[in-house]
Amino acid sequence: MESGRELKITLIGAGTIGLSFAAFHLSHLTSESQLTIYDTRPNLETYVQEALSKFDTSTLSNSSRDFSKIRALKSLQEAVQDADIIQESGPENLNFKSELWAEVERHAPRDALLWSSTSGIPASQQSANMKDKSRLIVVHPYNPPHIMPLLELVPSPETSADVIERTKEFWEARGRVPIHLKKEVTGFVANRLAFALLREAIHLVDTGVVSVAELDKIVESSMGPRWAVAGPFKSYHAGGGEAGLKGFFKNIGGTVQDCWTDAGEVNVGDGWEQKIFTEAKEAYGVVDTNHRDGATTKVLGVVQNSGS
Amino acid sequence: MESGRELKITLIGAGTIGLSFAAFHLSHLTSESQLTIYDTRPNLETYVQEALSKFDTSTLSNSSRDFSKIRALKSLQEAVQDADIIQESGPENLNFKSELWAEVERHAPRDALLWSSTSGIPASQQSANMKDKSRLIVVHPYNPPHIMPLLELVPSPETSADVIERTKEFWEARGRVPIHLKKEVTGFVANRLAFALLREAIHLVDTGVVSVAELDKIVESSMGPRWAVAGPFKSYHAGGGEAGLKGFFKNIGGTVQDCWTDAGEVNVGDGWEQKIFTEAKEAYGVVDTNHRDGATTKVLGVVQNSGS
Repeated sequence: MESGRELKITLIGAGTIGLSFAAFHLSHLTSESQLTIYDTRPNLETYVQEALSKFDTSTLSNSSRDFSKIRALKSLQEAVQDADIIQESGPENLNFKSELWAEVERHAPRDALLWSSTSGIPASQQSANMKDKSRLIVVHPYNPPHIMPLLELVPSPETSADVIERTKEFWEARGRVPIHLKKEVTGFVANRLAFALLREAIHLVDTGVVSVAELDKIVESSMGPRWAVAGPFKSYHAGGGEAGLKGFFKNIGGTVQDCWTDAGEVNVGDGWEQKIFTEAKEAYGVVDTNHRDGATTKVLGVVQNSGS
Repeated sequence: MESGRELKITLIGAGTIGLSFAAFHLSHLTSESQLTIYDTRPNLETYVQEALSKFDTSTLSNSSRDFSKIRALKSLQEAVQDADIIQESGPENLNFKSELWAEVERHAPRDALLWSSTSGIPASQQSANMKDKSRLIVVHPYNPPHIMPLLELVPSPETSADVIERTKEFWEARGRVPIHLKKEVTGFVANRLAFALLREAIHLVDTGVVSVAELDKIVESSMGPRWAVAGPFKSYHAGGGEAGLKGFFKNIGGTVQDCWTDAGEVNVGDGWEQKIFTEAKEAYGVVDTNHRDGATTKVLGVVQNSGS
């Protein structure tokens, strides 16, 4: 699937994620291509255009503000019947998704790619009612997907190699970072990693070592910028000098293990919630995500220009 | 302690961290100020100048290449006797540090600030042989400190409020991010957070979900750039919209807990080492830290220019 030829992309669901994908696809459509949005909201066309108009302009190319390319439809059959790609960003509900894919399968072209943006419901469950389960793959973005380069490709054991490969090619051709996960692991990779750090963060605030705002400042002024440039393995491999990661663990493996042994394994409902929710609200109020997104776009720009 | 007046800073130890602090201090000295390096290496002056010359020039200001301001001394007494600040970046060895501070205390001015760069030995242990334990505080950098803004200030229960405050003022006056930790927790905060994520990263590679290089790409294209701009609490608080962090946990707290429950709690010596050390070596060889440091400097530049 080359990015040059005519391409028909249908988005199912015009929530936050669906709209952000719409902005992304608009930036990468050729003149003959078509973007369709299927949703059951009233006044769908107006809603979509107004919502996209609120995005921070520094995060969008000019073409992603050409809303005339968007077709808003309320008939699922009509929306998918000639699509090359059908990308679902609907409610996180297994019944919804498994019924949707059975219906999509009845109307969509046989070789259309079927993508789910789910953050937690594996393709193997979503495809339960499908006749051909080889067609579905999870394409999990990091929010918001019109800015963040990562897509986690999570096939079920029945997803075909061809579907995985064509999906990967689509995103690579558009300068994105699609990573193929070899197992349908709970929460996928990015969230598991982030939540592991969040768990320790909650413990450290809950036990009074630092405040919510102080913890954020620590991350923003240390591992955030570092990991924007070199991920954790690469960073610690560098930290070990010529002996690499092995040298790193030889030098400070004892401290690493001490931290792991001492880690605070909080759980949802343990009672830390009130203190931490309140501190976050007092520190941040309602966050201006447009400012955050503009700054993130700049960070990604300088990293990409620095090469790897 | 204003940054304007004459200031005498003495660094103890000319290893990687000590030299990086030397580069930082050189950039911030006034013309009347003085930087002294104490170390027992032969040909200390030549060694220091050659080592600093190898730093990536984009990460240094012009003044931090004016090596004429550095005094290299092999007598501890001479190095500390008129210092305002004595910053230790010596071996991670309790005996070395506790003996050092007892000796420093005998020769240094009574109100000199005493800072340890240790990544793991708390001030309460280092000060064991000191007469006045209120003077010592850990000032733990994120490597390399001439680039990374974070300094974790970790007092012992006996460190005076005045020492904490003067230390904080020093770094804030120089545009850095000093964060005061209220408890001497194992590994301090930044490393605990990073090692929590690393633990899950090792588990995910060890169980074959992704490779070392793929895991790094995931972090570099998602939470790295995000957390350079907004730390984890702020990010998830934003993710919850107007309901903030509370809304975030209401929406996906179930997935968060599922990830925590399923987390892979690997330990040092569990047998994952061979696979992961080998993959890191094959993926990265010896990392060019100058390129990494140049790119990190650019990332920090755009974040700082974006305001907060």
